[in-house]
Amino acid sequence: MVVIAGPCAVESREQVMTIARHVKGCGAHMLRGGAFKPRTSPYSFQGLGEEGLRILAAARDETHLPIVTELLSEDDIPLMARYADMIQIGARNMQNFRLLREAGRIGKPVLLKRGISATIEELLNAAEYVRSEGCEDIVLCERGIRTFETSTRFTLDISAVPVLRQRTHLPVIVDPSHAAGARELVPALARAAAASGVAGIMLEVHPDPGQALSDGPQALTLEMFAELKRDLDRIAALMQDLSHAGRGRKRASAHGAGA
Amino acid sequence: MVVIAGPCAVESREQVMTIARHVKGCGAHMLRGGAFKPRTSPYSFQGLGEEGLRILAAARDETHLPIVTELLSEDDIPLMARYADMIQIGARNMQNFRLLREAGRIGKPVLLKRGISATIEELLNAAEYVRSEGCEDIVLCERGIRTFETSTRFTLDISAVPVLRQRTHLPVIVDPSHAAGARELVPALARAAAASGVAGIMLEVHPDPGQALSDGPQALTLEMFAELKRDLDRIAALMQDLSHAGRGRKRASAHGAGA
Amino acid sequence: MVVIAGPCAVESREQVMTIARHVKGCGAHMLRGGAFKPRTSPYSFQGLGEEGLRILAAARDETHLPIVTELLSEDDIPLMARYADMIQIGARNMQNFRLLREAGRIGKPVLLKRGISATIEELLNAAEYVRSEGCEDIVLCERGIRTFETSTRFTLDISAVPVLRQRTHLPVIVDPSHAAGARELVPALARAAAASGVAGIMLEVHPDPGQALSDGPQALTLEMFAELKRDLDRIAALMQDLSHAGRGRKRASAHGAGA
Amino acid sequence: MVVIAGPCAVESREQVMTIARHVKGCGAHMLRGGAFKPRTSPYSFQGLGEEGLRILAAARDETHLPIVTELLSEDDIPLMARYADMIQIGARNMQNFRLLREAGRIGKPVLLKRGISATIEELLNAAEYVRSEGCEDIVLCERGIRTFETSTRFTLDISAVPVLRQRTHLPVIVDPSHAAGARELVPALARAAAASGVAGIMLEVHPDPGQALSDGPQALTLEMFAELKRDLDRIAALMQDLSHAGRGRKRASAHGAGA
Repeated sequence: MVVIAGPCAVESREQVMTIARHVKGCGAHMLRGGAFKPRTSPYSFQGLGEEGLRILAAARDETHLPIVTELLSEDDIPLMARYADMIQIGARNMQNFRLLREAGRIGKPVLLKRGISATIEELLNAAEYVRSEGCEDIVLCERGIRTFETSTRFTLDISAVPVLRQRTHLPVIVDPSHAAGARELVPALARAAAASGVAGIMLEVHPDPGQALSDGPQALTLEMFAELKRDLDRIAALMQDLSHAGRGRKRASAHGAGA
Repeated sequence: MVVIAGPCAVESREQVMTIARHVKGCGAHMLRGGAFKPRTSPYSFQGLGEEGLRILAAARDETHLPIVTELLSEDDIPLMARYADMIQIGARNMQNFRLLREAGRIGKPVLLKRGISATIEELLNAAEYVRSEGCEDIVLCERGIRTFETSTRFTLDISAVPVLRQRTHLPVIVDPSHAAGARELVPALARAAAASGVAGIMLEVHPDPGQALSDGPQALTLEMFAELKRDLDRIAALMQDLSHAGRGRKRASAHGAGA
Repeated sequence: MVVIAGPCAVESREQVMTIARHVKGCGAHMLRGGAFKPRTSPYSFQGLGEEGLRILAAARDETHLPIVTELLSEDDIPLMARYADMIQIGARNMQNFRLLREAGRIGKPVLLKRGISATIEELLNAAEYVRSEGCEDIVLCERGIRTFETSTRFTLDISAVPVLRQRTHLPVIVDPSHAAGARELVPALARAAAASGVAGIMLEVHPDPGQALSDGPQALTLEMFAELKRDLDRIAALMQDLSHAGRGRKRASAHGAGA
Repeated sequence: MVVIAGPCAVESREQVMTIARHVKGCGAHMLRGGAFKPRTSPYSFQGLGEEGLRILAAARDETHLPIVTELLSEDDIPLMARYADMIQIGARNMQNFRLLREAGRIGKPVLLKRGISATIEELLNAAEYVRSEGCEDIVLCERGIRTFETSTRFTLDISAVPVLRQRTHLPVIVDPSHAAGARELVPALARAAAASGVAGIMLEVHPDPGQALSDGPQALTLEMFAELKRDLDRIAALMQDLSHAGRGRKRASAHGAGA
């Protein structure tokens, strides 16, 4: 089970380096961070742009963590092609079909987040836009849907994991940070996702969430991430074990039936 | 009350001309039609592109109806600047913030459709992206939100009309065709919208809906449009009358109170 | 078009009498008011019980307005049978199937409100529970569904009106007060409902909404009701006129086709 | 972690006995089964009534599994008091406030299911109705909420588990069967729930789901239940372990800080 961790937005070299070293030390597999931020208001912090990508690349150089970062516009594709290891299409752009096609032509893996009111069928169709351009390396991400419930920022649709696993061979990951909108809720959701059979989990981490320029309330502290990562490793190991045991019982039962 | 009518997608010169002449004859004020179509599946008809824009322009030349058509990508801005009278941002792109900014720089009015799960607050913030680039001529369009109810394609949020009128001076129109997803429901919704105080109504019309390349089930036939347009004119006249009467009563009561 | 008006909760004889006389004077057709109130918290005002029913009956005696009031429990059926002219089943009880059956046996008309997350199909099935006990006089009421939008208390599903008119011969009314949750929004929604083809509109009215024991923010003042009632009468007259004109055109066209 | 299992509806003595013996053998802690069934249509199977309760009681006598069964109406309270060990209030009755009060007076534990569109706040208020009558032994159950997604019957709101654990000391369980509506999805959701920190899981089991009189598609077969129960035991053991480890680290860190 892959763990992708990092800040919501790249804020400074120091911030990213601190996080990258920490999550690497805890065994994370990839570094996330946004250089171009889609923000509800035009007057909010919009990301550092290319400078942010350079910071992410520097963190990769030191930690060897591949980086995944969001593509917001066709105009930024040359930058993405230069810096990113994996291209993220955010929830708001899941049906920005031109962008999906362009992302599919970059020649890098694509992480496609489900729109906040997209059906699973629409998510699979959006992936088909990326695939129709020749990209086969696509990861789907459940990150919460919009419902009437307001005690969480979005409602994590955990059922999307088994449903997607029935309908596609593409790997499915979960982002509990955006779904929850509150860091206290993230560990329980991450553990649930791990036990539901995901291929990976994507987490927001910040050394000082109270000072974060974007989505601070949902960022795990470094300590919380370390503890959660230990839990996730244990759950992932158990899941593998259960999966082997299940296959074993199926073989035994098939053997018994044949005898 | 402005009535905007036309096909979902531009399919051919003959189709657009037939519709444009008919809706002009019925008193419509603008012609709508998509040359670039955002479709759930990459294998559906994606629109005629520039050829579609040329057809719309020809229809404008003959009927003098200004044309509104959807902008899907920054790449198409030069074409839009050449052909369109009003730039439509579709529901799927309501939070495509780069596109919003670019649309705001074209120097033409912008019709901004509400995302299917966007709050009214988010719609106003999206308009702010357009406005932040200097465009003051923005029209907001309610076109149905996604809910649990499946007997209509979307749920027309008619309450958005009075809520938006409280919160912004921008004109608000309603698109009942996309909300309903079924032409039989469109007249009742259009009449309701007219009585709710909208500045305009946007309707899909097709001479032969059964053969439409996109969204045929929700397109009005030419006859249905003619009949509905007559009804809308009557309702619009009544609304103006009621509004004058209301202001008259307020003046009288203020006068009485002052006496 | 029938107009049903009255307070959310019966609070006192004076309150009900003031409202009943006023709405009668404005031409309302029925008086509404709750004696048993379903409240989210057990510590909120729960209604006056039988005393409330007696007050309603006194108002009916004076104004000759029939009264509609909510049945909350099988235990209250004898009281309902004695005092009410029409039995209301509230949104929270739309799938309280035992109560539906009991209501169908009382021998009085039943006003069935749609649950806040009930599909139209489920509403029709709930009506079938009432009908299966022999009650044919059932009125369906759209009163807003629960969605992600928080700028209104619920989202008035205006499309339910034409959808229900396609699927059932039962009359359909709209309650814009509960949907809106704010009196400023009620007139626009009521006008929209009137133009959508409803058989009636149900409105909450209070002489002093700031002092109401329940749902004050959505109650119209007496003045607002008077003005809205005048508007609704005009719209209802126009709707009848349009409907006659539509039938006339259809006859003419059938005649022409036959000639 | 408590596991409650059994059929949706009690259909026959043989059916219940088969299930009860099987789930007891697998280590389940309680038996569920409905004798009074709330069904969308009045023409569907409505349950065996008292005969169903007698069958459940017989299964309890043999297996010593306590039984939980749904209360639909105040009229059935004497029967419930005689046969049930725990009173279930179903999702449709979560705001049937009279029934909540009556359930709180029976003197038995109450299992309160969240309404399909009830907020967590409303669920807590509903529990308060039960508690206000003196019942302190209340279990809350998340069983899926209604959203736009149709690939599952409801959307399991897994976030409700950590949110409720923050806001109340009442135990929280999850019913993945009703949420999923399809047995293939139930194991993944049950495992997720187990890892999210629930106090229990409630599962529908049927020896021959294809012949079930109610909700067959979501019932686990006996074999599926046996396998899932083994998995849940392993996850529950791990969760306890992680919880101890977490507390150990906190003590160590507090000790370190104090040193």
